[in-house]
Amino acid sequence: MEMQKYSELSKAEQRSEYDALLAQYNKYKEQNLKLDISRGKPNSDQLDISLPLLSEARPREKCFSENGVDCRNYGVLDGIPEMKRLFADMLGIKEEYIAVGGNSSLQLMYDTISRALLFGVLGSERPWIKEDARKWICVTPGYDRHFKMTELFGFELLSVKMTPTGPDMDEVERLVKDPTVKGMWCVPKYSNPTGNTYSDETVRRLAKMECGAPDFRIIWDNAYAVHDLGEEGDELLDIFTEAEKYGNLDRIFYFTSTSKITFPGAGVAMMAASPANLKQISQFLGVQTIGYDKLNQLRHTAYFADKEAVHEHMMTLARFIGKKFEITLNSLSALEGLGIAEWTSPRGGYFVSLDVMPGTAKRVYTLMKDAGVTLTEVGATFPYGIDPEDKNLRIAPTYPSDTDLAVATEILVVAVKLAALEKLLAK
Amino acid sequence: MEMQKYSELSKAEQRSEYDALLAQYNKYKEQNLKLDISRGKPNSDQLDISLPLLSEARPREKCFSENGVDCRNYGVLDGIPEMKRLFADMLGIKEEYIAVGGNSSLQLMYDTISRALLFGVLGSERPWIKEDARKWICVTPGYDRHFKMTELFGFELLSVKMTPTGPDMDEVERLVKDPTVKGMWCVPKYSNPTGNTYSDETVRRLAKMECGAPDFRIIWDNAYAVHDLGEEGDELLDIFTEAEKYGNLDRIFYFTSTSKITFPGAGVAMMAASPANLKQISQFLGVQTIGYDKLNQLRHTAYFADKEAVHEHMMTLARFIGKKFEITLNSLSALEGLGIAEWTSPRGGYFVSLDVMPGTAKRVYTLMKDAGVTLTEVGATFPYGIDPEDKNLRIAPTYPSDTDLAVATEILVVAVKLAALEKLLAK
Repeated sequence: MEMQKYSELSKAEQRSEYDALLAQYNKYKEQNLKLDISRGKPNSDQLDISLPLLSEARPREKCFSENGVDCRNYGVLDGIPEMKRLFADMLGIKEEYIAVGGNSSLQLMYDTISRALLFGVLGSERPWIKEDARKWICVTPGYDRHFKMTELFGFELLSVKMTPTGPDMDEVERLVKDPTVKGMWCVPKYSNPTGNTYSDETVRRLAKMECGAPDFRIIWDNAYAVHDLGEEGDELLDIFTEAEKYGNLDRIFYFTSTSKITFPGAGVAMMAASPANLKQISQFLGVQTIGYDKLNQLRHTAYFADKEAVHEHMMTLARFIGKKFEITLNSLSALEGLGIAEWTSPRGGYFVSLDVMPGTAKRVYTLMKDAGVTLTEVGATFPYGIDPEDKNLRIAPTYPSDTDLAVATEILVVAVKLAALEKLLAK
Repeated sequence: MEMQKYSELSKAEQRSEYDALLAQYNKYKEQNLKLDISRGKPNSDQLDISLPLLSEARPREKCFSENGVDCRNYGVLDGIPEMKRLFADMLGIKEEYIAVGGNSSLQLMYDTISRALLFGVLGSERPWIKEDARKWICVTPGYDRHFKMTELFGFELLSVKMTPTGPDMDEVERLVKDPTVKGMWCVPKYSNPTGNTYSDETVRRLAKMECGAPDFRIIWDNAYAVHDLGEEGDELLDIFTEAEKYGNLDRIFYFTSTSKITFPGAGVAMMAASPANLKQISQFLGVQTIGYDKLNQLRHTAYFADKEAVHEHMMTLARFIGKKFEITLNSLSALEGLGIAEWTSPRGGYFVSLDVMPGTAKRVYTLMKDAGVTLTEVGATFPYGIDPEDKNLRIAPTYPSDTDLAVATEILVVAVKLAALEKLLAK
């Protein structure tokens, strides 16, 4: 049956639909549910898939890297060779660009920007903290933790809209002419939360664009680099290759981790950058730490021989996660044709981005909360936590069980409809 | 036989002694040795003692903390309860003071000072970076990595001499009256490299002293808290208890790690501070990271039930490390009575501090280097890498095998004598 748009219904029809939905909503409410679709976090069943990493005892002879380093001991600031090779292979970038870190790429990004503030980066005239004004580009909707970090560090956050091919590049090119704009957050593949991947042209324009600041940096958070939901994943152009063509290799600070490949709390993170950038950073890194956990690097390289092994593992995860997306999209399909919502069907990553009727996202959040379902806070996907249109909701389907997720997303559909009707009826 | 002081020998006797030593030295040189007594680093045989930590497979049911957190997943910024309890038990401090970190306490100290620079600490009038002048107290000889860190962060380093009971407290009390003095490095037990422990009076005076800066901080790096070489270890007064008595609880930033209990590269580090300090820090920590590796915390708490288990383990290590100190002190005894050297016989820690004839430490370093033995660089134990008297050498006996250590320290004795005689003969 073809659905009729809510806005085209008569007031009486809207009222009757509203009453029916409210009855449905109240039934859910009576169940005293406690569900959470707020964070892009695997659940314990998904994590079991990576248990083979922890299944082996490690006698002395298994504690050495291929070049003979005792991984139990101090030393090796930038990672053991086999871990660098695995990342290089997985990401299609050069081994010499890679510096392996601890368990958190977010921590590496924080360190990187905090170092830039205190000491500057290659090409800086002074430490960033000494700049009177400093600004940062945020693609919206985007990743809340990114935005909070640059806010904490005192950058003025500039919003640029996400389009199906990536950030609105005309706007980005215009903004970066300002020499006080020091950097930009990018999640180029299966972007958080929209799930789209930057087009080749977008990557090229980012690599090529003329920046006012000589020390402008793109934080290329390729968190979902290999996180396809099926054999046919999105293809992302290699930004290093492009940046090198235009003489802008030093512009790129590239990050990823195995957090959503193996264990979110006990994976391996990395930063990749030009050899010149890495050299500039190394003078500080040697003072900062005695080296990251190399035994955990060994656990990963013992389990993943090469990128094919990673791919096989990701396809096992995809069957598990794909089910979650299917359940979510299946629930959301009840909103089709009503003219009150749009959403994404990503081919990878961890999120579905749902745009509801403008001015109703907060109301949906409250309705959900009252029914016992936690959503990502409205506005979180925008700088300063403010969604100017009050319409974007980020759905993170991976944490609940399939059954709980089905219930949570069914309630979500009811809440989206209710909020829209409330607004229409109030007119 | 009673040795005669070198300075009391006739020139001819000095010359003859020199010639005999030179012949001995040249024989060592011919062996093309490659030995290293430069870093306080366990060797692989010592690390084998902690292998039981890695000997168990970890099925799903062993991945949860006692309060039900899946340690493979994101979350828990300040550590799982059993790890906090273990540190509290080991150190005799309150659990609620503890925030567990990653594998490196040095990284936690770097983070702490870098945060203070960017945001200030509790009681700061402004971020430390905005202070026109900032100074830091360094007890000398001391830990090279500490000094380098505050140098990198742009502090003016103020030297205070180590005495047998800890830093020269009269001098410390005088210096901290200056409001631009923001902090002080302390390794209060088995200090690096002198091996002595702060007396109760020293701890009390540090806790009590009047500081010009309202946000003055003591970095209490209790790296060798349980690292006794025998059942009779040094006792260190609890600084938190003392600081609280005088209303200065917030003055203390306390650090330690299991690096030299289990694995230097894969241990667990922690910071301890007053609840008010931890609260101030937590607002930044949540932006900085998604949490440290909790599986590694579980590995440690599974192996160490309580402080008695840690103590038993440390006594096993002590038998291993004690042998290294014995060999070193046995070699050094050949310097007794010559009036050209003094050294420490610590009851714990990782170092022997050797003071040679003033003005000859660099020469000893070069002689050793030419004979294939790496010593800690001369001056490293002083701010800016400059030993004003050119006399202190830090001996780190743990890394070489017993045989290699015996050879290295025998050559050291020859080199110390040679350098002293060169100086005396040149007069």
